[in-house]
Amino acid sequence: MYKAPVQEIAFTLKHVAGMAEAIDGGPLSDLGEDLVEAILAEAGRFATEEIAPLADVGDRQGARLSNGEVKTPDGWRDLYRNWAAGGWNGLTAAEEFGGQALPHMLNVAALEMWNSGSMAFALCPTLTMGAIEALNVHGSAALKEKYLARMVSGEWTGTMNLTEPHAGSDLGVLKARAERREDGTYRIFGQKIFITWGEHDAAENIIHLVLARLPDAPDGTRGISLFLVPKFLVNEDGSLGARNDLHCHSLEHKLGIHGSPTCTMIYGDGKFGGKGAVGWLIGEENKGLACMFTMMNNARLAVGMQGVAICEAATQKAIAYAKERTQGKAPGWRGSGMSPIIEHPDVIRMLLTMKALTQGSRAITYACAHAIDMAHRATERQEHWRERAALLTPIAKSFATDAGVDVASLGIQVHGGMGFIEETGAARYLRDARIAPIYEGTNGIQAIDLVTRKLPLSDSKQVRGFITELKAIAEAVRSSNLDGFGATADRLGSSLADLEDATSWLLERLAEGRSAEALSGATPYLRLFGLVLTGCYLAKGGLANTADGLGEGRIALCRFTAENLLSETAALKDRVVHGAESFAAARAVLA
Amino acid sequence: MYKAPVQEIAFTLKHVAGMAEAIDGGPLSDLGEDLVEAILAEAGRFATEEIAPLADVGDRQGARLSNGEVKTPDGWRDLYRNWAAGGWNGLTAAEEFGGQALPHMLNVAALEMWNSGSMAFALCPTLTMGAIEALNVHGSAALKEKYLARMVSGEWTGTMNLTEPHAGSDLGVLKARAERREDGTYRIFGQKIFITWGEHDAAENIIHLVLARLPDAPDGTRGISLFLVPKFLVNEDGSLGARNDLHCHSLEHKLGIHGSPTCTMIYGDGKFGGKGAVGWLIGEENKGLACMFTMMNNARLAVGMQGVAICEAATQKAIAYAKERTQGKAPGWRGSGMSPIIEHPDVIRMLLTMKALTQGSRAITYACAHAIDMAHRATERQEHWRERAALLTPIAKSFATDAGVDVASLGIQVHGGMGFIEETGAARYLRDARIAPIYEGTNGIQAIDLVTRKLPLSDSKQVRGFITELKAIAEAVRSSNLDGFGATADRLGSSLADLEDATSWLLERLAEGRSAEALSGATPYLRLFGLVLTGCYLAKGGLANTADGLGEGRIALCRFTAENLLSETAALKDRVVHGAESFAAARAVLA
Repeated sequence: MYKAPVQEIAFTLKHVAGMAEAIDGGPLSDLGEDLVEAILAEAGRFATEEIAPLADVGDRQGARLSNGEVKTPDGWRDLYRNWAAGGWNGLTAAEEFGGQALPHMLNVAALEMWNSGSMAFALCPTLTMGAIEALNVHGSAALKEKYLARMVSGEWTGTMNLTEPHAGSDLGVLKARAERREDGTYRIFGQKIFITWGEHDAAENIIHLVLARLPDAPDGTRGISLFLVPKFLVNEDGSLGARNDLHCHSLEHKLGIHGSPTCTMIYGDGKFGGKGAVGWLIGEENKGLACMFTMMNNARLAVGMQGVAICEAATQKAIAYAKERTQGKAPGWRGSGMSPIIEHPDVIRMLLTMKALTQGSRAITYACAHAIDMAHRATERQEHWRERAALLTPIAKSFATDAGVDVASLGIQVHGGMGFIEETGAARYLRDARIAPIYEGTNGIQAIDLVTRKLPLSDSKQVRGFITELKAIAEAVRSSNLDGFGATADRLGSSLADLEDATSWLLERLAEGRSAEALSGATPYLRLFGLVLTGCYLAKGGLANTADGLGEGRIALCRFTAENLLSETAALKDRVVHGAESFAAARAVLA
Repeated sequence: MYKAPVQEIAFTLKHVAGMAEAIDGGPLSDLGEDLVEAILAEAGRFATEEIAPLADVGDRQGARLSNGEVKTPDGWRDLYRNWAAGGWNGLTAAEEFGGQALPHMLNVAALEMWNSGSMAFALCPTLTMGAIEALNVHGSAALKEKYLARMVSGEWTGTMNLTEPHAGSDLGVLKARAERREDGTYRIFGQKIFITWGEHDAAENIIHLVLARLPDAPDGTRGISLFLVPKFLVNEDGSLGARNDLHCHSLEHKLGIHGSPTCTMIYGDGKFGGKGAVGWLIGEENKGLACMFTMMNNARLAVGMQGVAICEAATQKAIAYAKERTQGKAPGWRGSGMSPIIEHPDVIRMLLTMKALTQGSRAITYACAHAIDMAHRATERQEHWRERAALLTPIAKSFATDAGVDVASLGIQVHGGMGFIEETGAARYLRDARIAPIYEGTNGIQAIDLVTRKLPLSDSKQVRGFITELKAIAEAVRSSNLDGFGATADRLGSSLADLEDATSWLLERLAEGRSAEALSGATPYLRLFGLVLTGCYLAKGGLANTADGLGEGRIALCRFTAENLLSETAALKDRVVHGAESFAAARAVLA
């Protein structure tokens, strides 16, 4: 059973991702170390003791639809209410609406733990948090006044309604329509698919944020507006009024995250009376996509946390099994009888790989949250931190979610035949993990975003400056003269050179307008960047002189990573630089 | 929907795996090209038209147990009977028992197609074929006389009963016991788990091959005997007699292959009367493991075919979706509206990778079957071919099944959100594929087998001779001077050097008794070998001058593979040679 790794999480936040400096005279100086420890400990307890034990029932029962109502799995309604009562939903929200205005770093750490407990469960607040942020940034004072406090408290949940059957990655072609009414409200009509927690019984009201098109809107993404469309209309006194003209038509039958209802939502078909779902504009007409991006960037990092969460939970489970299960005799085994399979070199290889990808993904996502906090709270270089967050977001989302799939798959392998049996629980991690590289922008789209929008930031000074910082870590390893690092300094140096070369090559191709070539290597490039960050952040952790007694282990894991996983960076650079030429002719094979 | 790629299969058999030479004056000269074409076409038709349409119902319904009886999914009983009536079960079996004594090459090609149609369905004959072979090689004349013809016809199916809860990879510790009776029969007692198609309603009788231990047997693997234990006893006249004292106690709830009943079998608990399940010895007492290995080697290649089969089916499905689904505008897209996603470079990268791994896995497995055929039928160098088959078997099993998982996962990714929805069918491929790297010896065990038992064959002359043959392919690419190959010759040369270096390093470590170091890199080494074979076999296909009009496509796919996938070999060699040093210290991280 999952046990939240509170100590490791705190270490990564403080000594790898930059929280310690931000507290010590930086923009987080209000935040006491004691508060951080207390929050993490309590979040860890809740994830371990309350959420994780209900993950299996959620997977087995799934969310169930009958008569337009969605019933959550046994125990989940109370679980959600207890979770909200703990104040977790408003960790980062504004104080004026009841939030605690704490840094994002704490929230992503908590999100990691909720998701390790149950990814299907954690999706509900993940969506609500995104809706809160979009409403807070773009909503009118009146809308915020009416909705935000109840969403921050978790009494009401939120959703994002983007996708339609023909409009997934490309939102420009969506068809849901909105009509203006004289009272300033709108009526919404249309169908939305893949709406996470679009309908359920765990909260009193559900606040849908819906993208739709006005009759006179321009074509494409410049003609999309964002609307707030509540399940129940809200009276002036804040009490719930009539049911709005929207409903859940069906639930998807999915590979994983069974406890999370994935809804097809129908707006304005009159099933609950009314002529169109009543909606209120968020932001300006035809500027809906910009509002939605506020939610989406937030959500991309949150999806990255799902990857980290699955990595951690799957790794814990595999290590526990490998210690317990005995089979054969490992080389050098001197015990009586069979050795635990954790003594077999091939099992050690798998488990260390899982551990390294977990720690690397965690560090990258936390560093991204750190950049977001700095962008909001630092008194100087805010633009630099905004860019850093923008650069890290696609890597955090994609590298961590790919790692989630790979680590969950390795976890099944460690379990042998038992891994394929659903009751064991290892298979669920793979089933749940598999969606994360797809939603909130597929990982291929993240890679395109990284290459075409993020590398050019500040005339490429952002990415080059980042690489320079990373080189300093490699140099610090070298000058530490610690034997335990083995060849880490050389390996990091070589991988950083690969990253630098690939970055320059891509920037040159973009400058020349040769985007097809650049895009052919976007995914290998993103992985290259993620591996380099993994190596550097593990090294930074290994170098941090802390009193927790795990220093040698961190250095040893860093060495394993450098001497085993980083050899891939040369191959990835090669794919970026030389891979594209063969695409054109080979494309014919797919005819 | 899957359509058997009969033309590509025939090409690979003939021009890549060696069938053409074996027919043209070689040991398969009895085999006409027309017969090969006819068999493949009819197998393809059956897989496409009969099996594939019943795959989904099998996945949804699964096998169902009630009162000790297992009901197969709707339509599967007739499907199996029609399949057996087509004579497919006896393709390679001896003519004296009604088989057609055709080469294994044809059987693996057919197996690929059955498995693409439905892996859960194809598992039934896969197990029967293994049982037939073990019985044919090791059984007494009387046993063969009584059982083989009905098994070859498919009227009766066969199983392998190895695993017990504490004895999976390590069979030395199994506890099922056998008692001698004065009439020469035995009584079998014990529990076996993970018994594929251990009970079902598609055939009249089920012939279980069961490993058990005699009371006076030595400890460990030298004290295991193999028994034939039929579900129904068989009278002297061949009619079915009393129910034997064995039954299916429960079915596993699995990630995939739902249509295949995975049974816990109980022998000798008296549920159907009797005092112990009546069994007959196969081979000699205490030599059961050797008999079982006859089945297992066969089964390992058959499991490799499952990997190829999933690769092919998942790739077909992804390509079809990518042509149909439109989203966004790809670079250079000049059509109106959105482009099909197959125009996006990142999608092309995924699909070509899927295609390359499919073709590579197919070529490796077929080459393994070719070596088996040559070992049985060639008039000279039989030992050489036995060794070649032994060398290729672990690579065929592991590389192809890993590819199955990777390709199925990429297939989901190509489908975007639809890939996560079960009705789409892409997710089933991943769920089914995930068992193949585990059973019949985990891929980690295959890698150990490759390194410790296969590399040293004939004092390493077998592997070195093979590498020399592969180098000749690289040279042939170079001297072909075909522009379409791009950098293939250089890439192959470099990857072959990686393979040669890694091989030498491993052989040195083994010679020095440093097996832990060698085993640490066994899995990366196996993948390195598989990638090199993929590159070389695709090149061989590209060089084959055939009239099918696909020559340019084959060369282009080979180039894509060489310039994109082969860059990984340097990293893999590095892991083999330098990876192990970091294991010892990092092992502590797993404490």
